[in-house]
Formats: sequence, C-alpha cells, structure tokens
Amino acid sequence: MAEGSSRLELSPDRLFPADPGARGVARELYASVADRPIFSPHGHVDPGVLARNHPFEDPTRLLLSPDHYVTRILHSVGVSLASLGVGVSPKPFDPREAWRLLCDHWDAFLGTPSRFWLEAELVEIFGVRLKPSPATSDLIYDQIADRLARDEFRPRALFDRFNISVLATTDDPCSELADHRSLAADPTFSGTVIPTFRPDAYLNPAGIGWAEAIIRLGDASGRSTSDYAGYLDALRERRAYFIEHGATATDYGAPDTVSDPLDFADAARLHAKAVMSGLTEVEAAAYRANMLFEMAKMSTEDGLVMQLHPGVLRNHHRPTWLEFGNDTGHDLPQQTEYSRGLRPLLDAFGTHPRLRLILFTVDAAAFARDIAPLAGFYPSVYAGAPWWFLDTPDTILAYRSAVTESAGFYKTAGFVDDTRAFCSIPARHDMSRRVDASYLARLVVEHRISDDDAFQVISDLVSTIPPRVFGRTGA
Amino acid sequence: MAEGSSRLELSPDRLFPADPGARGVARELYASVADRPIFSPHGHVDPGVLARNHPFEDPTRLLLSPDHYVTRILHSVGVSLASLGVGVSPKPFDPREAWRLLCDHWDAFLGTPSRFWLEAELVEIFGVRLKPSPATSDLIYDQIADRLARDEFRPRALFDRFNISVLATTDDPCSELADHRSLAADPTFSGTVIPTFRPDAYLNPAGIGWAEAIIRLGDASGRSTSDYAGYLDALRERRAYFIEHGATATDYGAPDTVSDPLDFADAARLHAKAVMSGLTEVEAAAYRANMLFEMAKMSTEDGLVMQLHPGVLRNHHRPTWLEFGNDTGHDLPQQTEYSRGLRPLLDAFGTHPRLRLILFTVDAAAFARDIAPLAGFYPSVYAGAPWWFLDTPDTILAYRSAVTESAGFYKTAGFVDDTRAFCSIPARHDMSRRVDASYLARLVVEHRISDDDAFQVISDLVSTIPPRVFGRTGA
Amino acid sequence: MAEGSSRLELSPDRLFPADPGARGVARELYASVADRPIFSPHGHVDPGVLARNHPFEDPTRLLLSPDHYVTRILHSVGVSLASLGVGVSPKPFDPREAWRLLCDHWDAFLGTPSRFWLEAELVEIFGVRLKPSPATSDLIYDQIADRLARDEFRPRALFDRFNISVLATTDDPCSELADHRSLAADPTFSGTVIPTFRPDAYLNPAGIGWAEAIIRLGDASGRSTSDYAGYLDALRERRAYFIEHGATATDYGAPDTVSDPLDFADAARLHAKAVMSGLTEVEAAAYRANMLFEMAKMSTEDGLVMQLHPGVLRNHHRPTWLEFGNDTGHDLPQQTEYSRGLRPLLDAFGTHPRLRLILFTVDAAAFARDIAPLAGFYPSVYAGAPWWFLDTPDTILAYRSAVTESAGFYKTAGFVDDTRAFCSIPARHDMSRRVDASYLARLVVEHRISDDDAFQVISDLVSTIPPRVFGRTGA
Repeated sequence: MAEGSSRLELSPDRLFPADPGARGVARELYASVADRPIFSPHGHVDPGVLARNHPFEDPTRLLLSPDHYVTRILHSVGVSLASLGVGVSPKPFDPREAWRLLCDHWDAFLGTPSRFWLEAELVEIFGVRLKPSPATSDLIYDQIADRLARDEFRPRALFDRFNISVLATTDDPCSELADHRSLAADPTFSGTVIPTFRPDAYLNPAGIGWAEAIIRLGDASGRSTSDYAGYLDALRERRAYFIEHGATATDYGAPDTVSDPLDFADAARLHAKAVMSGLTEVEAAAYRANMLFEMAKMSTEDGLVMQLHPGVLRNHHRPTWLEFGNDTGHDLPQQTEYSRGLRPLLDAFGTHPRLRLILFTVDAAAFARDIAPLAGFYPSVYAGAPWWFLDTPDTILAYRSAVTESAGFYKTAGFVDDTRAFCSIPARHDMSRRVDASYLARLVVEHRISDDDAFQVISDLVSTIPPRVFGRTGA
Repeated sequence: MAEGSSRLELSPDRLFPADPGARGVARELYASVADRPIFSPHGHVDPGVLARNHPFEDPTRLLLSPDHYVTRILHSVGVSLASLGVGVSPKPFDPREAWRLLCDHWDAFLGTPSRFWLEAELVEIFGVRLKPSPATSDLIYDQIADRLARDEFRPRALFDRFNISVLATTDDPCSELADHRSLAADPTFSGTVIPTFRPDAYLNPAGIGWAEAIIRLGDASGRSTSDYAGYLDALRERRAYFIEHGATATDYGAPDTVSDPLDFADAARLHAKAVMSGLTEVEAAAYRANMLFEMAKMSTEDGLVMQLHPGVLRNHHRPTWLEFGNDTGHDLPQQTEYSRGLRPLLDAFGTHPRLRLILFTVDAAAFARDIAPLAGFYPSVYAGAPWWFLDTPDTILAYRSAVTESAGFYKTAGFVDDTRAFCSIPARHDMSRRVDASYLARLVVEHRISDDDAFQVISDLVSTIPPRVFGRTGA
Repeated sequence: MAEGSSRLELSPDRLFPADPGARGVARELYASVADRPIFSPHGHVDPGVLARNHPFEDPTRLLLSPDHYVTRILHSVGVSLASLGVGVSPKPFDPREAWRLLCDHWDAFLGTPSRFWLEAELVEIFGVRLKPSPATSDLIYDQIADRLARDEFRPRALFDRFNISVLATTDDPCSELADHRSLAADPTFSGTVIPTFRPDAYLNPAGIGWAEAIIRLGDASGRSTSDYAGYLDALRERRAYFIEHGATATDYGAPDTVSDPLDFADAARLHAKAVMSGLTEVEAAAYRANMLFEMAKMSTEDGLVMQLHPGVLRNHHRPTWLEFGNDTGHDLPQQTEYSRGLRPLLDAFGTHPRLRLILFTVDAAAFARDIAPLAGFYPSVYAGAPWWFLDTPDTILAYRSAVTESAGFYKTAGFVDDTRAFCSIPARHDMSRRVDASYLARLVVEHRISDDDAFQVISDLVSTIPPRVFGRTGA
C-alpha cells in the first residue's frame, strides 16, 4: 500500500463547493460558526453514561456496536450483526475482531456520511492518522483503546471538549429521570442535559407492550390509567414531571400523521376496550388519531414543543428483530403525507400561540410538498432538520433549497444530530455547518442574498434559531 | 445600520451560475431575450383594473394585501392577516402599518422568490434604493405612494411599460366580459387582454355553491341547465362566447385527474339528482370524472386549449377561510397522479389533432414521472410551467432537467406567471428567463447542446412556444 | 445554414462538469475506463441478429424503427408511428422518408439522451460529420446505407468493434434458445451471448395470453402445467435449461412489488381456477404475490440472480397498442413502493446466502426512499442502475447521490443499457462512464473521497461489480 493512501487526513475544505468563488465564501461563512457551542435538542445518548462518567469500555462498544448507521452497512455487505456486538444483550463477541471487520470493509462506506463522521471522530477525537484497513486495524484499535483509558476521554470530559451547551436525551414518560437529576445535582458537572418526553409506547394500542405500558404509566403517575380520564391525567402529570426536570419538548414517532379528535365518550369507550380486550385495526387507528390530536392539545396547555416524525416502517426484517431487537438498521422510510392528516389538528391549534410543532420526515419529497408549505403558513409549524436517512450532504443541500424557497430560513427548527453515537455529535454538527455554509455561499455568488445576510443567517441557524424554537431562549 | 447594507441593489448577474464559464454563457443567452415582450397566457389580474385605469390606491393594497405569496409568509411568522388587509372585504386596517409589518419581517423572505420579485418591483418600477427595514419603512412607503399618484404609474401606463404583448385573465364562465369588451373597444388602449374560461365552480356538484352556479349558468346562456343536455349546451355556448371575446384557452383546477366518460343516460341521471337532492361522494366523483372527459371533448370541438392543474388542497385552515375567504395562503400541494387518471381521456382524444392539453402540477415529483412521459408520447399533451409552489429558481432548474431529458424543450408550454400581483409580472418573467438561461448555459458548457442551439431554444421558449401552444400564433 | 452549425462533432469533454477543477478530475477518471470492455447484463437485442449475421437492412430499420425512445418523441411532435415503420409487422413505409422525418425534427431531441446516443452512433460508428437536417437527411442516409453494405458493419463485426465482453439477452422461458446455442457452437464467433429468463407472461393470470402461455410452458417442459405442482416444476425445469445455456439471471417486470406466499393448497386451488375459469382481480393479485415469492425461492435454490422492475403502466394508449403492439413508446412510469411489498419475501430470503435481488425502478423517488435503504441493510439486495426513463445524465447523477449516501457504491449492481437498439450500446455505456466520472470528480474536489479511491471506484463500477453481482465473476 502506498504511503499516501494509508494516511488519514481531513481537508479543511471538505464538503465545500468546487467553484473557487463559492468555496471562498463558504470557507468564511463556516469559519464564522465552526467553533460555536453545540446545541443538541434531539438525540439518543444515554444520560447514564454522563451520570456515571465511567471510562468507555473499548473502541468497538463506543464507536461501532451501538451505531446502526454503521452496522447496517456492514450487514449489507455480508457481516453478521452478532460478530459486531449488536443488540441490547449481545452474545459474546470479540471487540478487536469486530473492529477488524469494520476496517476490512472500509470501502463499503465510501461516499457515505458515516465514513465522514467516523473519519472525523478518528482524527479529531482520537488523533488517528492511519486509514482503516486490514493492515492498520490493530494499530488503530490500540490507539483508541489507549486514549479511552485516560481521564480526558471519559464521557464528561468529552462532553466539555465537544463544547455542548445543551444536550437533550430521549426518555420514557415513566422514567424517574434519575440520571438527569443526578447530573443536575452534581456541582462538578456544568453541562446541561435535559430529558425529552417520548410517548410512542403509550399512544398505540396496536403496538407490542401497550397494555403493560399503560400499567407502568399508572404506577409512575399514581393515576388509574385503565380509564381514559385517568390516562390523560397521567400523561399530563408525567409531562409536568419532565418539565420540572428541564424538558422543553416531546418527540413522537407516530406511524402516520392522521389526527382526528374523538368525543370524550367515544375515546373513553375505545380506551376501555383497548385495556380490556384489544382493538380492531380500524379502532386502533382512530385511537391513535385522537391521541395525536390530544398531544397537540396538551402542548398548547403546558408549552412543550411537539416534535413529530411519522412514516418509519420499523423492524422490517423480523428474524433480525427477534435476534437483536429494536434499532438494528432495518427501520425503513415510507412515503408520508402531512397536509391531510394534520388538518384537524391544525384547524384546532395551528394558530395557537403556545403550540410549536416541528415536523420531521424520512421522505424527502415531503419537504417541498408538505412541510415547507405548512411551515410557510402556520405560525406554529416548523420544518424539522433533514434527519436519519436524510442527514447526508446532498440531501441537506436539497432540504435547504426545498424549504428556503418556500418558507425561508426562519421557519426551520435548526439542526438535530439524532444520534446514539456520542462521539459523532461534533462531526454531525460540523457537517451541518459546512453544508449550510455551502448552500449559503451558492446563494451569495448567485446574487440571491447578500454577503451580510448570509453571515446573519448562518449565525442564526447555529445559535439563535434552535434554542428559540426549542424553548431554551436563555441557553 | 451600515450604509452598505441599507442599499437595495440588483446585481445584473443574479440567478446566474457561479462557474465563470457557465455564467458568461448565461449572461449572453439572457441578454438575447431580456427585453422581449411578455406573453402572459395564464394569470389572475383583474381586467377591471385596466379597464378603469384608476390610479392604484396605495403601496400596501397594490403590492402586499392581494399577494398571498407574501401574506402567508408574514402570517407564518406571527403577523395577523387582518393587519395586512387580506380578504375580499377586509376589516379596517392601516396600510402604512401593514407596510411596516412587511419591512419589519423582511428577513423572513430571505432566499424566497417573493423577496426576489418584491426587490425587483421596488427597484425597477418604483426606483426604491433603500433596503426595507423598520428604519426605512415610511420612506419607502412614501416614495411608492408618490409614484402611484402620477399618471405614468396608472395601470395602462404600467401595462405598456411592462411590455406585455398579451395578457390572459381568468374568468367565470358566466361573466359578460364587460371589461374585456370595453378594453377591446377602447381606441386609446393598444394592449391585448383576453379572457380564460375557468369552469371549476360548474363541474363539481360536491363544491360549495354548485347549485347556484348552475342556475347562474342557465341565466347567462339562456339554456335550461337543470337537465344535462341543456347544461352541456350552456357550457358550449359560454365557451363560444369566450372565443368571440378572444379566449384561446380554458383553465381547470380539478381536485384530481380522474377522467371517465359516463353514458349520456347515466350522466343525465346524476345531473338531475345533483340538482334535485345532491350526490353522494362516490357519485360526485363519477360526475367530475365524466365532466373532465367532456371538457376535453369540447376542446376537440371548439379548439380551446385545455389547461389542467389538479392536486391542490384548498383552504386548509378553516378558521382562516371563514374569516378571510379563498386564496389566502393555505391552499396546499398534494401528491398527484396523472397517467392512470387521464387514461380514458387520452385514449379517446390523446392523438386528436385539435386537442392541446397543458398539464400543470404542484407536485414536483410528477414532472419526471407523469407529465414528461405523457408529453413525450401524446402529441396533444404539453408540460405546463413550474407554477405556484414550484415557481422558484431551483425548482425551475429541476423542472427543466426533468422535462427536457424526457421530452425535450418543444413539448413544454412556456412560462406562465399565474399571478394576482400585477407589478410582479415583469419580475416573474425575468426570473424565468434568467433561470432558463442558466440551465441552457450548463448544457452548453457540459457540451450537451451547442451554443447556437441554446440561443435558438431560449428564443423559442420566450417568444415562439407560448403563443404557438396557446393558440396565439399571430401574437 | 452556416458551415459551423451544420457540422456534427462530439466534444471529448461532453457531460463533464463545468468547474475546471472538477472537469480535470472527471477527464482522468473517465480516461481510466473509457476503453474497457462492455459487460451488458441486461438488454433486449435479438440474438438472432448475431446468429444470422446478415447485413442490417437499412439505416431506418437499424437505428430508428425499433427504438421506441426515438419514435415516441417523434410521435409526440406529430409524426405518425406508421410512417416510421414501427411495429412487429409494420405496414409498408419508405425508410428514406422515415429518416427524413427524424432529420426534420432533430430539434425535438435537443437535450435528450436519445440525441446524445444518436449523435454518438452517427459519428463514432458511421463516421457521419453532418448535423441531421432536412438538407442533410439524404446524404446521411446514403452514407450509413453504404457502410451497412460492408462486411465490417455486419452484426458480429460490430459486436467485436463495440468491445462487448458479455451480452445478456431477454428470453421467453419456453424459448429453445436456438440462437444462443448456435452462437455458442460457432467456432468463428468468440463473443459471449447469454439468455435471461423473463417469466412475466407466465406469472400473471390477469394478463393477456396467460392461459396459452401455461400450455406452451407445459409443452416446452414436458410437465402438466394445469396443476400447480407441475407448473412450478416446469418453471424450475426451464430455469435449469436456461442455466445450462449460460443464463445467470432472471428479469421480472412485475406490476407491483407485493410478495406474499400462499399455502400450497391455496396456491394450487387458485392455479386450478385460473386455468379453468379465470380469477377475480383480488385472486389474481394474490396469485401474483405468491409467484413473486416463489421466484425468489427458486433463486435461492438455483442461484439465478433475480432482477425485479415493477411499476410500469404498459400500453397506455389503447388505439396505438391495437395498431402497433407492445413497446411502442407509451409504457409509463408509476409511483412504486418496495419496502412493504417485499417484506414477506425479504423476511424469508433477505439474508439467504444464494439470493441476489436487483431492484430497478422507473420512479426516481424510490432510489433514496426504498431501494437504497433496502440495499443498505439486506446482503441480498442491490440497487439496479437508473433505467428507462431514468437513464439520463442528470438522473444518473441523482441516482448516484441518492444511493451512495445511503448504501455506498458497492451495493449497486452496475450499469445496464436495457436497449433494443444494438448500435446504442456503446454510447449508452459511454454516457454512464462519463456521468459516473463526473459524480466521482465532484466527490473528489469536495474532499469527500480521495483521488485514489475515486479511481478504484470507477474501475470497480465498470469492470468488477457488474460481473460479480450478475454471477459472471470469471467474465
């Protein structure tokens, strides 16, 4: 292998446009925000990692096993998930061997954002200077393992080094938020880690485990959730508990966008039937549509920002799900409609001064067709960041184009990293800043906006809009 | 505020590509058509404005209140529509204060075509040199108001200055077209203003006011529209009346594209039931599908060009509709299918020598998937311009790419401004010419077409294709 | 006509990006693969043409009449298909006049890939140096006719000159593959021409001619296909026969993607009913869904690569179909869903080591939303090349972007020309190589991948991936 090709180096100009004029503008725009603190209002980092602050176990368990973006691509080229330590209770596996599988298949990631993020993590966090390959796998593994043993690579140290101003986690409504409380109470931790209310399991009577969830909800809230009024009260109570612990938002991954209020009596009847004997498919859909409406209503009452991300077909491959559980790389995007489904909700609350509804999608066609037109009329609606399958450089550019031309910059909600991979947070925000700079640079050189305006916009996108939309104006 | 940023200036290179080579070609292509007369075959300007030729009232009522592109974005950032004078019978409002709200929220429009158009209107029509802001709001308002008081800013003077060769309006089939007649009879007005037959209200028994519309249609045509044969005759008679007054086209905003002829007896039975007691949803759909087919058939008989633009979900927010009426910024795009729906219509008339069917969409995915393939086979079908939510620089580029690679340039119908905002007409056509020049410049520098061909194409797109497709070859 | 504009010349830089830096990289990447042999795993050339090796009749019957890409555009601007010699048994027509119609309407093709391919064919195969026009039509016709009379323009000579390493045809399962056998047995022909198993007509009881097809299948296989077990055995037997004759793949143009296995008894009952008295629409859909599943199952048994391309609405214009037959330019793309439909199939066989399932689409939205996410998880799934309506320069770029960012380069299946137009094969592969070079060049200059990696990738895309995915590793 040639010397040249075995070096891992990051160009300072990566992701900037080819045209020299546009590149120059992009460089300056990026430089103006590159070092800003990270506001991360939507992600999936385990707060316990920060609360405990134990050293990370090993490179594989930190960077590979929990990142389904990475493991799914390895799986797609023939690597077994078991050999990568995937799953909540993985079978015995060899972390060093798993790392080698990653390095063996490094070319499978060419051109993907996962490779961009991993390279940034290797270079910028761990000082790796070798390109992953069968020949360098052990060297890299050892270098990272060496770093992880040091105090400055413990979770909180990295949190500080990543310059995270606010980190929102995603939490079960019944959670006591013990880790959040412990972090908040700890005078030695100066970061801000807040919970997010994720009610999915409690809103879908057709989902696995709903009946048990309702019982748990009763226990957590001290309400009788077997009747509908108590169930609603319990949800309200838990939301209030989350607000007490710093939450500013909910996050709901609904199967679809249908929102249709039921009369209280009808809803109560369905709830009772769901608890007792279960619902038909049609009844369950009506139940969910009512609860989507109710979630918006509760947001108008308690002010929690409502994040909605419908349209994901979960756990596509049943054998994999049975063996490895949720979030193992085969949740798939679906075509998704918003305007018809959300009409009742927006008729009722679309101009309500306390509602903020952030719409995410995994269907890129929805940006221009549904989300931007809704955000471009309703004061309550914001276009969520391109997310999950859409968090790639070209799609972020396409998102900016689709949304900006219809609703401007100021009805977008700001970047979210949405990640379980703690170490990818800085790289993901960096990609977003680079790509936004590239988009704005194009607008500048095409004389669509002025240079001054571009600097103002990128500053607002990074620092002003996210805390404002997510209700952390003081952040 | 710095001197620099408070100046409003338009770059001569705006919207041209960044690459210097491509920009040079785009500049020349644009220059070759920049001053050509405007052929406007599809828009919503009130012909009475030209017939009366009264001075425009004030800046706000001219530029802001009637332009739902602008008012919807202000609404989306929290401005009430009432304060902007929106609606057919607006409540009392202060035009100067409304103008200030626009200037206060000028950044909300960054990157949108509305800002491009407004800036062009301010600079090129009214000579405004100050960037809108709270500090400049009154100065700009006063400057425009001053101009509007002058004779050279009356509607007909602007019509001449805009260099409009033909302006098609959109008209109710029952209209006596008094304004068109008065303009045609006026020896002091040399412009051409022609009506367009817009039958929506008469074709959908499930729509509000259909029964009354049918009665109006009977009165206007002197036919008995309570029976189906009389109804069809009345439509034919009104089409003929429009043709007498210069119309060359119809314009139908159908809910969908389903076209299915009924037997005469079945259609007559449905019509009678619709008049008497109303139809079920399924019957109404069958009625509409039959009438879409009939509209095409009538076009093969009388030669009126058929414009079809399905897929708009009208008046999404009921409270806003109840307070302010139609066309107030919350009509929303829907996913739209064409090939299956139009199959019966095209089976019958797709190769008919007198049919010209122009397909518009608000669903950008339809350009490549439905419209271009249809236009690339059927001699009767033309791809309508990117329109409404899709009349933005990047989407015009995407439209050109999607349609050209499948059906070439000569099965497109030419740009339509589709606007209610009279003063935006030149800016909208200018944007279209700039973006088409940019697209063609890319093809030239990528050696996909020759320089000579590019000059021929842009000339045809601006001056030859639109009058030919819209049946105004002599224009 | 000016001298300049009447010359037909091909720029060596055609389809490369405008930016000089990116263009330089694209040039080098392209040069590294421009002369590589063509591996053509999916097309529609008649093997009899090569087996007989007769001189081609005339320019029109070679280049125009059989190419529905070309005839549909001429039809769309008013040329009758009859005058072009379209159809299996065309009516008498004048080939020279047909050629003139093409030259008369040369501008209708501006910006289309068909013009790119035709120009490349004229210049590079036939040495034409004149731009088609009414004035040059006869000269060009005569020049091509002159060449076609020479031995070095016979089919096999062109096959060699085109540098085709493997050509896969598309064949009826009942075909005796006589032409393939004769080519394989001919010591004077060194090319590789292999069949592909195309079972469409045998899997859809609602399709025209299914009952007759089943009888044919019985005759060809010596099985009783009136019962289900015999029918399955017959299909297996014919697949084995194809494998014996070099086939490595099947190719199924299913109406949709629904795959749902039936119990053997239910399937047998439906099969018997289909043979006896025909099925309802719902039953036929169930039958097809079961057979899509069965095709995948057979692939796991015999190793034939499974190509699937659903979503085409065939023969849209019935009058044209009645007069000219299949494949006459009015098959139309439909919106297509993959993830839900294929779930049962992938649950059962998605991780089976012998299945390779290549998913094609005519709906560009499916690349990012369905196909790449499936290919990015399932080891058996590959993203098929952009095809048919999507085989255009800008869509190939969009495909690369959509698929690469989600699934990388190595889960794509390589370019397929999918053509009936024998002489367009080199031009189509050349376009693909040029556009891939342009895409990769952008990634290089934007520092997304290294120069070295780009050279490796383009080499793999052209020479390594296609034979590997299509099971011709030794090719």
